[in-house]
Amino acid sequence: MVATTSAQDTAVARAARLRAIDVDLHPQITDWGKIAPYAPAGQRHRMTRSSGPPMAKHGFKQVGVPFGTAPRPTSADGKPGPPAADPRWVQEHYLDARGVDLAILTTDLTSLGVQPNIDVAAAVASAINDWTLAEWVRPSERFKGSLLVAQQDTASAVAEIDRLGDDPGLVQVLMSSASESPLGRRQYHPIYAACVRHGLPLALHSGGEGAGMSPPATAVGHPSTHFEWYGSLPQIYMAHIMSMITEGVFEKFPTLKVVLYEGGIGWLPHIMWRFDKNWKAQRAETPWVKEPPSAYILRHFSSTTDPLEALPGPALAALCAMIEAERTLLFAGNFPHWELGDPFAMLDELPSALRRRVTVENALALYGERLLRPNVAAGAH
Amino acid sequence: MVATTSAQDTAVARAARLRAIDVDLHPQITDWGKIAPYAPAGQRHRMTRSSGPPMAKHGFKQVGVPFGTAPRPTSADGKPGPPAADPRWVQEHYLDARGVDLAILTTDLTSLGVQPNIDVAAAVASAINDWTLAEWVRPSERFKGSLLVAQQDTASAVAEIDRLGDDPGLVQVLMSSASESPLGRRQYHPIYAACVRHGLPLALHSGGEGAGMSPPATAVGHPSTHFEWYGSLPQIYMAHIMSMITEGVFEKFPTLKVVLYEGGIGWLPHIMWRFDKNWKAQRAETPWVKEPPSAYILRHFSSTTDPLEALPGPALAALCAMIEAERTLLFAGNFPHWELGDPFAMLDELPSALRRRVTVENALALYGERLLRPNVAAGAH
Repeated sequence: MVATTSAQDTAVARAARLRAIDVDLHPQITDWGKIAPYAPAGQRHRMTRSSGPPMAKHGFKQVGVPFGTAPRPTSADGKPGPPAADPRWVQEHYLDARGVDLAILTTDLTSLGVQPNIDVAAAVASAINDWTLAEWVRPSERFKGSLLVAQQDTASAVAEIDRLGDDPGLVQVLMSSASESPLGRRQYHPIYAACVRHGLPLALHSGGEGAGMSPPATAVGHPSTHFEWYGSLPQIYMAHIMSMITEGVFEKFPTLKVVLYEGGIGWLPHIMWRFDKNWKAQRAETPWVKEPPSAYILRHFSSTTDPLEALPGPALAALCAMIEAERTLLFAGNFPHWELGDPFAMLDELPSALRRRVTVENALALYGERLLRPNVAAGAH
Repeated sequence: MVATTSAQDTAVARAARLRAIDVDLHPQITDWGKIAPYAPAGQRHRMTRSSGPPMAKHGFKQVGVPFGTAPRPTSADGKPGPPAADPRWVQEHYLDARGVDLAILTTDLTSLGVQPNIDVAAAVASAINDWTLAEWVRPSERFKGSLLVAQQDTASAVAEIDRLGDDPGLVQVLMSSASESPLGRRQYHPIYAACVRHGLPLALHSGGEGAGMSPPATAVGHPSTHFEWYGSLPQIYMAHIMSMITEGVFEKFPTLKVVLYEGGIGWLPHIMWRFDKNWKAQRAETPWVKEPPSAYILRHFSSTTDPLEALPGPALAALCAMIEAERTLLFAGNFPHWELGDPFAMLDELPSALRRRVTVENALALYGERLLRPNVAAGAH
């Protein structure tokens, strides 16, 4: 036995005590004036309007009760305020109230990767990253950040990953799943090289599909309603997964891990086994794809719990087995976007043997010791 | 008991004797000069080039052995000829050899619905329909035709359905799944009204995705290879299904049935249960969607067996149960496109209790007596 250091002892002890790790908490930006100072000087003026920088938006808007049953503070005017604007309020009313020990922040800027002005997009990413570190991550060991990048300018995305990739407060690189091109295309490979260089998983979050430079949100054109649009979003993940596998991303970057946010899990068996079948007949076209696609999928991709499909119980257990959820499924609290229900109720639907895997252990295995080390490096104060 | 007519007796007896109904046989066009005479006079000259009418094509091309293990005739030059150009050869070497009693013809023109010249597209549809009837369907009771239409011009598609919709040799309307817009959009509703008016299911066949006026073949842009492209095609079906349901097509046309060709089945539970969950929170946006989406899917859609995903046995049985395959799954021989394997081997993988349902009974239930009546109406000779 190798003697462990006291830092490792602390990490092991802390890991054992963890009740839940939430990989998906969305800080809300209510005042871009507070973000602007973190932007590069030449782009700061683009963020000083009250509505923030110029950003293309799609026309799909959730109906129903805003934020569902998520707790909300009372504003000065007596009305419900934004639930996720104040880190201290979130810590008390969400993390403490629901027994979440650690939360990974994922921003609300899900259309950044399809914004036409690539310099504004890069500046927004940098500003959000520094603001997140300063306002959320440094003051509390309960939050970890995602390193947001805009993939439409690979060079600036790589530079941003190299600027902050070793920061102890950041645990993954975050991009929009909305994209001009499928993410296996070679122009994106330097981003994956940077992820691997800094030991960071790549997170993709849906939400910008159909905005800005995005193709229509389905491969047969534009949906009509939020209901249709939102339900169709996993199609984008299917396209990205198969692009990354068929373009050989995981042969080139065998340690790269990818987390798919808010896409459910029910389509993964289809993708795995349709492409496995096709691979047998069609792999001469992509000789670098050495294993059946399902092997890459099960080894490189993780999914999140919110929203899980409304599966009848036995079907959910069967699907969890097919996708090896005991390794690949992560708990997403998705606070404060609770319009589709309480994310903890979705957890309760999982087979009980999976629960601690999903709420704690899979995240620890994926993000590693980075998740447990202090947010400020020793000597940095 | 009502006394049955002798025609009914014959149909019942014939149904009981059927060994297999193949809903997907692709006649090959090897000489457009033979199609041209069937085209409307004003468009005939567009089809007299040896390569046929001007048609946009995508750049994806199957690798591997052409037609896989499908039997092929020997051409005059001693080389393998086209397997599905001659109805008599197909009848002997495919239907008789494999025990298929009835086959529904589905053309090879899978990109017709995204051709830019809408008048050429409509003329091609009419010519192919009349050629199919004259050359394949009228001479043999073993073939039934599909009524091909090009959805980009609704008026001409409706006129074509009204022109031929009661022909005893045609059993369904056929459109490309490749489409400028999701098929729930209201411009397509007159086509569905015409299907219902003539008691014809609507068949969608993939293959034209990414060609002509189609958006990119995925919602994040163009795939790079046939392998990536072909595996991604079911995403188009997901988009169409959800468009048709959320736009209220099945409330408006409660008897409309839709057959999805070549998309597999593994993604249906995902679509069913993701949208069911969303429906609970989001249906205020589409108040005409009165039932959970899974109810419409199970009632209105059928799928075909070739290619089924390469599912491990228990997973295939579980998925068949989820999609009620005992009612919704149809045998597709997909002759001569056997690059992905022998379609009969795929049948063997199904739970044995399903086989006769899939090979015979589901098709009889879907297409009804039209499938068994003579191809030439009494008195038409």
